[in-house]
Amino acid sequence: MVAPKGKVLLAYSGGLDTSCILVWLIEQGYEVMAYLADVGQEEDFEAAREKALKIGATKVFIEDLKKEFVQELIFPAIQANAVYETNYLLGTSLARPVIARKQIEIADREGCQFVSHGCTGKGNDQVRFELAFYALKHDIKVIAPWRIPEFFERFAGRRDLLAYAAEKGVPVVQTAAKPWSTDENLFHISYEAGILEDPNTTPPKDMWKLTVDPEDAPNTPERITITFEKGIPVKVVNHNDNTTVTEPVELFTYLNTVARRNGIGRIDIVESRFIGVKSRGCYETPGGTILRAAHIDLEGLTLDGQLRALRDQNITFPFGRILYNGQYFSPEREFLTHSLAFTQRNVNGDVKLKLYKGNTIVEGRIARGDGAKLYDEKESSMDEHGGYNPQDADGFIKIHSIRLNKWTPADQ
Amino acid sequence: MVAPKGKVLLAYSGGLDTSCILVWLIEQGYEVMAYLADVGQEEDFEAAREKALKIGATKVFIEDLKKEFVQELIFPAIQANAVYETNYLLGTSLARPVIARKQIEIADREGCQFVSHGCTGKGNDQVRFELAFYALKHDIKVIAPWRIPEFFERFAGRRDLLAYAAEKGVPVVQTAAKPWSTDENLFHISYEAGILEDPNTTPPKDMWKLTVDPEDAPNTPERITITFEKGIPVKVVNHNDNTTVTEPVELFTYLNTVARRNGIGRIDIVESRFIGVKSRGCYETPGGTILRAAHIDLEGLTLDGQLRALRDQNITFPFGRILYNGQYFSPEREFLTHSLAFTQRNVNGDVKLKLYKGNTIVEGRIARGDGAKLYDEKESSMDEHGGYNPQDADGFIKIHSIRLNKWTPADQ
Amino acid sequence: MVAPKGKVLLAYSGGLDTSCILVWLIEQGYEVMAYLADVGQEEDFEAAREKALKIGATKVFIEDLKKEFVQELIFPAIQANAVYETNYLLGTSLARPVIARKQIEIADREGCQFVSHGCTGKGNDQVRFELAFYALKHDIKVIAPWRIPEFFERFAGRRDLLAYAAEKGVPVVQTAAKPWSTDENLFHISYEAGILEDPNTTPPKDMWKLTVDPEDAPNTPERITITFEKGIPVKVVNHNDNTTVTEPVELFTYLNTVARRNGIGRIDIVESRFIGVKSRGCYETPGGTILRAAHIDLEGLTLDGQLRALRDQNITFPFGRILYNGQYFSPEREFLTHSLAFTQRNVNGDVKLKLYKGNTIVEGRIARGDGAKLYDEKESSMDEHGGYNPQDADGFIKIHSIRLNKWTPADQ
Amino acid sequence: MVAPKGKVLLAYSGGLDTSCILVWLIEQGYEVMAYLADVGQEEDFEAAREKALKIGATKVFIEDLKKEFVQELIFPAIQANAVYETNYLLGTSLARPVIARKQIEIADREGCQFVSHGCTGKGNDQVRFELAFYALKHDIKVIAPWRIPEFFERFAGRRDLLAYAAEKGVPVVQTAAKPWSTDENLFHISYEAGILEDPNTTPPKDMWKLTVDPEDAPNTPERITITFEKGIPVKVVNHNDNTTVTEPVELFTYLNTVARRNGIGRIDIVESRFIGVKSRGCYETPGGTILRAAHIDLEGLTLDGQLRALRDQNITFPFGRILYNGQYFSPEREFLTHSLAFTQRNVNGDVKLKLYKGNTIVEGRIARGDGAKLYDEKESSMDEHGGYNPQDADGFIKIHSIRLNKWTPADQ
Repeated sequence: MVAPKGKVLLAYSGGLDTSCILVWLIEQGYEVMAYLADVGQEEDFEAAREKALKIGATKVFIEDLKKEFVQELIFPAIQANAVYETNYLLGTSLARPVIARKQIEIADREGCQFVSHGCTGKGNDQVRFELAFYALKHDIKVIAPWRIPEFFERFAGRRDLLAYAAEKGVPVVQTAAKPWSTDENLFHISYEAGILEDPNTTPPKDMWKLTVDPEDAPNTPERITITFEKGIPVKVVNHNDNTTVTEPVELFTYLNTVARRNGIGRIDIVESRFIGVKSRGCYETPGGTILRAAHIDLEGLTLDGQLRALRDQNITFPFGRILYNGQYFSPEREFLTHSLAFTQRNVNGDVKLKLYKGNTIVEGRIARGDGAKLYDEKESSMDEHGGYNPQDADGFIKIHSIRLNKWTPADQ
Repeated sequence: MVAPKGKVLLAYSGGLDTSCILVWLIEQGYEVMAYLADVGQEEDFEAAREKALKIGATKVFIEDLKKEFVQELIFPAIQANAVYETNYLLGTSLARPVIARKQIEIADREGCQFVSHGCTGKGNDQVRFELAFYALKHDIKVIAPWRIPEFFERFAGRRDLLAYAAEKGVPVVQTAAKPWSTDENLFHISYEAGILEDPNTTPPKDMWKLTVDPEDAPNTPERITITFEKGIPVKVVNHNDNTTVTEPVELFTYLNTVARRNGIGRIDIVESRFIGVKSRGCYETPGGTILRAAHIDLEGLTLDGQLRALRDQNITFPFGRILYNGQYFSPEREFLTHSLAFTQRNVNGDVKLKLYKGNTIVEGRIARGDGAKLYDEKESSMDEHGGYNPQDADGFIKIHSIRLNKWTPADQ
Repeated sequence: MVAPKGKVLLAYSGGLDTSCILVWLIEQGYEVMAYLADVGQEEDFEAAREKALKIGATKVFIEDLKKEFVQELIFPAIQANAVYETNYLLGTSLARPVIARKQIEIADREGCQFVSHGCTGKGNDQVRFELAFYALKHDIKVIAPWRIPEFFERFAGRRDLLAYAAEKGVPVVQTAAKPWSTDENLFHISYEAGILEDPNTTPPKDMWKLTVDPEDAPNTPERITITFEKGIPVKVVNHNDNTTVTEPVELFTYLNTVARRNGIGRIDIVESRFIGVKSRGCYETPGGTILRAAHIDLEGLTLDGQLRALRDQNITFPFGRILYNGQYFSPEREFLTHSLAFTQRNVNGDVKLKLYKGNTIVEGRIARGDGAKLYDEKESSMDEHGGYNPQDADGFIKIHSIRLNKWTPADQ
Repeated sequence: MVAPKGKVLLAYSGGLDTSCILVWLIEQGYEVMAYLADVGQEEDFEAAREKALKIGATKVFIEDLKKEFVQELIFPAIQANAVYETNYLLGTSLARPVIARKQIEIADREGCQFVSHGCTGKGNDQVRFELAFYALKHDIKVIAPWRIPEFFERFAGRRDLLAYAAEKGVPVVQTAAKPWSTDENLFHISYEAGILEDPNTTPPKDMWKLTVDPEDAPNTPERITITFEKGIPVKVVNHNDNTTVTEPVELFTYLNTVARRNGIGRIDIVESRFIGVKSRGCYETPGGTILRAAHIDLEGLTLDGQLRALRDQNITFPFGRILYNGQYFSPEREFLTHSLAFTQRNVNGDVKLKLYKGNTIVEGRIARGDGAKLYDEKESSMDEHGGYNPQDADGFIKIHSIRLNKWTPADQ
């Protein structure tokens, strides 16, 4: 029997919400295919596949996107020192482009006129998914059930979803719902909503999942060295046990492992969503936190000061906002990526780090290649008179003071 | 006997360098007055006074500038989230304006035609001092011995200074010279030069002075709440022992104390000096590190997202560069201060922090006044349909996608 | 009889569209009051009043907003050198805030639950009006008929409106519709749509309304001097006929007059609307073009170079975008206004201009007050050795070259 | 006989100053070679060659740099819409890099240890030349006579130079010195110093050299079309006489010709020199003014609005400052060039212009290639309901208003 309304590719998680959406879409007259992106989250993908098929999906696509996630999104974000509102490392934003791109690719191939997702109508993710969908396939149609009155009025609470699941024979795992929502991928996990909505509530100790509490981390520091080529991490060596990793996904996963056990990468913030609402989020970004610290440090040694200033203000800053707002597939993001790459040519070298109970402590760094020219011990030495003539500073200062001589303070 | 060349007010520290400069200036035919600014550094001011008088200073001025340092420089820097090159909290830069301003004020009053300092010819501080001097008194004459060939060629090393001191009867404290240089004030201490000039050398454990090693900090966290009014800290309460402080200098000093014992505020970086040379510096900024984290957090709750973005890019960013480059007394800095103040009107509230072995962990925050309107639990809730109509997001996304529909990726 | 749906305050122009909207709203069950803002456009306000009353408006409000338009919007825009996308002087954007503010004020006073306007669903003005409405009165309800299917499907073309007007007894002026749309106020007139939608069509000579064609302007130049205080024009003197004006509205109107006869202020551009669509617009901004040129010139003399750079990049740039996008009533615009005012303290002086066939030619300028200190003939003279020691430039250049010595071009 | 001090390559103009410098350098013990760069200025190069040889130069190098000037400097500046302080098109700054680069190339080849120039000690050009010299050859030695006391004290005025020339047999052209200085190249001519130092003095009509007075320009407009590929002008067609030009130098020279006769490209400003002094300059940039207007216009049609905004703020703005300050050979300029090129991929099409008595009037434009997708007549039409659903704007506006609902004006 042909579904009268056409085919939908649903971004499916195996959970209660998207299972109910799957069933509801069939009920509405759609043929539904389920799509699960493996971006490194902890998930029983095979169980999800079986469940999707059991409740009516005509096909299920499980896609391992970890490699493209690491190479196309995470590593460029490290090169950019990407951040939103000073502290947020953009973990959710970074995964959305690879997830959405594959969803459109499959929808296209399978002849789906529709794509669907389980995002709420108040968050950033609906925007990130849908801007990506539309940018990649201009005429795709999006079904966002949590913005459709028939849906959101019918399922006003979890109780309604559970009742619907029971009625429709949707298997429900009998775990107590956590009093917050999460989004997880290889780069990070987010916690929001529920009890976290009061910004003065301290997150409970057992909420945090990807890192141990710094208080429970080992009493002995762990020392590693990260090697970068063109701003991309290419090797991690652990000096405690001589572990060496180089393959991108393995390298990033390994950094997650060492960061996790040392309690590194937690933040708790109130942020400004694209839609103009403030929300409170807690995040764990273990490996990303270490990499960012190391990359920033190496840039200190290898990036010209004026170039760094331009990059910080003109690339890092808009890059974070554009990613956060879901405009990855856009001319401006493409421009920033292109500009950024140019700045990283000489960001080559090693950074030595000590990891200890939540701290990522830089203990030294060396540069390689042209980037090594920028630092000249003799020249910067306060103790030697090498490098240049100190009298030159007389003129430098005098000329810089010319303008200040004409200044009249406002409060005089 | 009148000194034939006129009067010099020398920024004097009591150490070997400025003592030799003092004597050398007298030898050159100047009358020398010594000036010591108390900006919170650990120093035996009275011993320095006696030494200065003993070796020939005609007057000694010891000025307690801590209050103006905290209120005019440190607190505005906290409001600005001031930083240079991502990580450096600008501790040296922040003290220079108050030190230089008082030096000019005294020079003026005492009829000194000259001011002098012991800064080297390769660093930022010579620039910071002298730009301030010239901006505040256009016709002041500056004597910078480390840029005068007769001086720097004669005193090519510490050995030469010691010989000169012995010859001139300058008392020398018999401590071994540390293999690095420091600059200390209430806000921070810096370490540079000497063994630190190799950027791959890990600073020795006993170098750090203002904070305990995180590894040696208590195993039990300490919890405090900081209250801000208009972005300025006005109260700190320690929940472990109920200590409460409110007076600005006392409050800041107290934060230094709790940060110190919890190992908070160390960094180790390579930075770009104004004069175009890279240098390696290690810094401890204990209380400032805590305050900055707390202030940024409260802004998350109380500052409109678009205003924050403008402030971050257009005030915070140039503020750090301008301070670092010694252009505090300038029309542009004055402009930034004025603009900044306007953004802080609603930054009112409390931030709860846990301090633990190097970590400053935000555990919650509340807003007061108009700033409290920006966060609306119900509206941002993913679980409720309050606040606004989720269907509005359809149009929001659709309109934002119009532009993206016309985008042709570069690599197609 | 009480209108069952409540009271609407309609922004009414007297034209066909808003007359039909007025009647249609009554037909829908609303009581309708008409509101006409006099922002300097050429209009028969009394005829519009009579027409509104005749076709069913229960009240008509005609408000002279010229003075607040000039003082609160136009003059600050001149201080900011406000511009959008390099060339557009923001004439429509500048009028919207004063129009919308008064509309909300009257709606409030008259107990209207609704406001309405005749803007299309594709332009910027709907956004500008409604963001202002919502910002000023959070719970106001907006009726935008051109976005309501019952309305826009019924009135698919001008023919449908004319038929409806005939049916409802709405008087229609028997002039041929122009093949473009306009928006006029004291600052400017815009032309768009119709034949202008082909961006390669040259606007017909008779389209332009507020200025003569430069080819038809006098063969003899006209010379004026504009005096500024704190960046605000306070006096215009015409040297051809000794006219002098000082009152703000009169001054601005006078500049319109002289610009008009000299063919000054036309542009023809393709711009990026906020909603992501490109559109072609032609604009005449006669007096504003002169004022902007004069103000920029005086800033050259009176504004410190570093301050100007910060202002250009950090205020002028976002100010244009924020105004264009209709976010006048916002924390970020308020912040920019506040910051801007500080920069204008010393922008005091006269600018001499020659106006000739489309050209605004600066012929000289003088500064007054502290701003006059910045320019020192002797110091900037290439012919004298006054002001400073030319040898200082040696050190200035040498120090600035240190960094460049380490540069390795990318293409080597 | 070998000159005891080594070989100098002097940037020589044939004028009084550099002729005296040439002779003076020989007198000081240097071997002097003369270098004249042909960057399109009006000059009798052969006469200068003979003069240089006559007064003692051992070699003379006359280099035609017009092609590289146009292709490497002028055209990228057009792509960038490069400008300094709103109005200055950077004509002098643009020529310096090609002049300095060739000077270093020749100095290297000829084994000159020194380069020299006749720039004063107060201007920007000394900085531009010397930063280029040092960046390109780190150990080059620069002789800047106007900053050497023996030189500038000896030649305190023109009279001293004339006396020296007479004494040394330097031929002097018997023209009256103009009461201003000029710098000319293919792109522009500058006028400064002398009577122009009073910023209120109107430049005399006979000063302007590269353009006719708009009042003297033809009464009939001239119409041209400029075709761009990737933001570079590749064809100019004159519709009055069907002239067509395509070769870069010929094209640019032709635009100079048509601009000149139509009185296009004059400005008169007070600018902020890099060294912190304000100075007054008058400039004619005939062809560049037309090209810039056309390029900006075409970007309106072909450049995405968000990309344009990033480019304007983050490339155009620093590009102007960096060029002006003489930092062409720097990592940051190279970065900007690289970023800029990416933005120009789709800036393809024609711009129709009317040139008339100082005015460059855009009369239409068409796009070609992917850039043509951005403008969709139907979509932007106010008269049609095509392109998108106007109801989407409801949600767009509503969501954008969420944030504004929480705003409390500062003055309430």
